[in-house]
Amino acid sequence: MIAQRGNIYSAHQGLLEQLVQALRYLPGVGPRSAERLAYHLLQSKEHSKHLALTLQDALDNIKQCNLCNHYTQDEICIRCSDHKRDKLLLCIVETPQDLLAIEQSSVYKGLFYVLMGRLSPLDGIGPSELAIDKLLHVIQQNSVEEVILALSPTVEGQTTLHYLQSILSSHVHTLSQLAQGIPLGSELAALDGLTLASAISNRLVLPLQR
Amino acid sequence: MIAQRGNIYSAHQGLLEQLVQALRYLPGVGPRSAERLAYHLLQSKEHSKHLALTLQDALDNIKQCNLCNHYTQDEICIRCSDHKRDKLLLCIVETPQDLLAIEQSSVYKGLFYVLMGRLSPLDGIGPSELAIDKLLHVIQQNSVEEVILALSPTVEGQTTLHYLQSILSSHVHTLSQLAQGIPLGSELAALDGLTLASAISNRLVLPLQR
Repeated sequence: MIAQRGNIYSAHQGLLEQLVQALRYLPGVGPRSAERLAYHLLQSKEHSKHLALTLQDALDNIKQCNLCNHYTQDEICIRCSDHKRDKLLLCIVETPQDLLAIEQSSVYKGLFYVLMGRLSPLDGIGPSELAIDKLLHVIQQNSVEEVILALSPTVEGQTTLHYLQSILSSHVHTLSQLAQGIPLGSELAALDGLTLASAISNRLVLPLQR
Repeated sequence: MIAQRGNIYSAHQGLLEQLVQALRYLPGVGPRSAERLAYHLLQSKEHSKHLALTLQDALDNIKQCNLCNHYTQDEICIRCSDHKRDKLLLCIVETPQDLLAIEQSSVYKGLFYVLMGRLSPLDGIGPSELAIDKLLHVIQQNSVEEVILALSPTVEGQTTLHYLQSILSSHVHTLSQLAQGIPLGSELAALDGLTLASAISNRLVLPLQR
């Protein structure tokens, strides 16, 4: 699409087309929206300059925490260096976004470990890509007693869960995973069969009120 | 949303949040997708560095053609300096994207003039924002005979058309607008009433084959 249009970009073919191509690497941006985005960026120059500089600055200065892998501007992130957090409890998540979602829930006050991915042979992510050695080091360093495997309820997430279960079983007292069931605020009729089946299998017994 | 989350961005609050805020200026990007985009950018560093540099480069070096306003790396764009184009014909469009769309159709070989907007009092775009003086200069300079008003079939586009019609009537031999009717490849049943009404009003008489 873009290649065919090359001839009509005329004199600025070079830079504008390069910008369109670079924007296509963004998630969910196809040839058309990359083009629209490029024109938008050229039209609002002040914002765009700010964006380019901020992006450059972020790329230069945000790195991964030496302990939990989460993004930080320091060697060790604020959570890992926070002495108030419960170091006997470690929650393993797939992505930084997952970590933030759990932090927002405000019930968890232990450590985190971000896998930065999950087992997915089709995408070339095998056990060696998940840096298990580092994870084991963090567990031993802190004498972690319980590891919560907060992985996505997807095929890859559950594959990763079972793999970590086999590796970690000999290193901790307790392994747990997130409860599966019906999400709060959902309508039963709108839920998928697998979720309902899981909620029925894991049903909670209520105390009898006699 | 983002402001509320500030507390959990922790040590990298500064840069990561700045990046999220800068991304929110992109069209169609809300707080959630800005966050997702920011993490994506941090996760694919090579592409993101390339994007930041390309954007910077484009912003520094792409400017607007002195004659037609279209983007170019030179003072005068390749179309305006192309002696093969018909300088007696000028097509006025709202945006660079509109210009490219018309170029792609390959039937037009005259000059262009990009308004870089359209009359829209609500957005603060009045007649003075459209740089009509420059347009009149281009028309006189090239002794343009016909001006095609290729404006969008929207309220603002048609307001702009009528405004330009009143201004340009005394400067050219012929003023024209794009034909309105049913788009090729469309299904009649799926078209809106206004398009059909316009297509019926502007119906073309067919020669009788007796």
